[in-house]
Amino acid sequence: MNFLEERIKRDGVVKPGNVLRVDSFLNHQMDIALLEQIGQEFYRRFADKPITKVLTIETSGIAIAYPVAKAFGVPLVFAKKAKSVNISGDVYTAEVESFTQGKINRVMVSKQYLTKEDRVLIIDDFLANGSALQGLIYIAEIAGATVEGLGIAIEKGFQDGGWRIRNLGYQLESLAIVESMNADTGEITFKEQ
Amino acid sequence: MNFLEERIKRDGVVKPGNVLRVDSFLNHQMDIALLEQIGQEFYRRFADKPITKVLTIETSGIAIAYPVAKAFGVPLVFAKKAKSVNISGDVYTAEVESFTQGKINRVMVSKQYLTKEDRVLIIDDFLANGSALQGLIYIAEIAGATVEGLGIAIEKGFQDGGWRIRNLGYQLESLAIVESMNADTGEITFKEQ
Repeated sequence: MNFLEERIKRDGVVKPGNVLRVDSFLNHQMDIALLEQIGQEFYRRFADKPITKVLTIETSGIAIAYPVAKAFGVPLVFAKKAKSVNISGDVYTAEVESFTQGKINRVMVSKQYLTKEDRVLIIDDFLANGSALQGLIYIAEIAGATVEGLGIAIEKGFQDGGWRIRNLGYQLESLAIVESMNADTGEITFKEQ
Repeated sequence: MNFLEERIKRDGVVKPGNVLRVDSFLNHQMDIALLEQIGQEFYRRFADKPITKVLTIETSGIAIAYPVAKAFGVPLVFAKKAKSVNISGDVYTAEVESFTQGKINRVMVSKQYLTKEDRVLIIDDFLANGSALQGLIYIAEIAGATVEGLGIAIEKGFQDGGWRIRNLGYQLESLAIVESMNADTGEITFKEQ
């Protein structure tokens, strides 16, 4: 088991409905030392790519994407969910279904911050059905940018998002792939990588 | 002018309705080197406080709070806006009015992550009417935690949020206080600190 799998085993909580709660260290309260380690690991896995921008989606992707963008020395751009008066009118948009919220959000990135010169590393905390990642890939593609790879902290290997993204030909790196989990026993098993 | 005021002057865009757009470097595309500098500056200003947790609010507070939490070596907790199935039932809540979105959000922090032992530094990107900060102070207080101070990147000095928070007796540190701005000329003046 790697450092993230060990942490999930120790502090993750399995809930009915295939929900894995990691809010004590990853997406509500955040352990910065762990996030730094995650950032370094993604940097290691994509170090040969000429990344110019790290792209993520609000909210919980931001704190994972931060140390990655820092390691590459590039700006971090996050796709926003709601239309705010603080965003310029010219945006790329995609529809994204949230597994945990059970609703569809329209997400957007200002056209100024993704261009055809950009070589993008997409980062997010969870991968389940892949809707958020596909939305981010779509936005990068219509901007004419190149998607160099995707880094995910926790992939739910029993849902088909990972299969879909890898089938599209992208390098997708998930630090922990949950093969199965049991809400009654709390047991979590990871896919050998 | 300090480093943040200089950056706002260079890259900030003034829009009608007292809107200051800093989405090219602070809250949509994010300049990580600038955020690291902001983190170090807040660390310097609150270094004598026994901070145990940095508290912020989604979304754009997270990337500013990250380097601050890292500098203090403490966890980062962010108040969440919507009820997600990934949050435990036991939460502290407050109502917060968003200046830029023109609506009221209910925000919450899980009771597990703020306790009466905590000494909290509250961080956010903008301070206008102070509603978000007052919501975070309220949550910290009902948790029995001690608010050691508040750090803001950009305060709109012509709105009364800063006055309200300082009147409550808190140490509020704003790196840039906008005294006036003009959407026609694009001019921005800062309060001497």
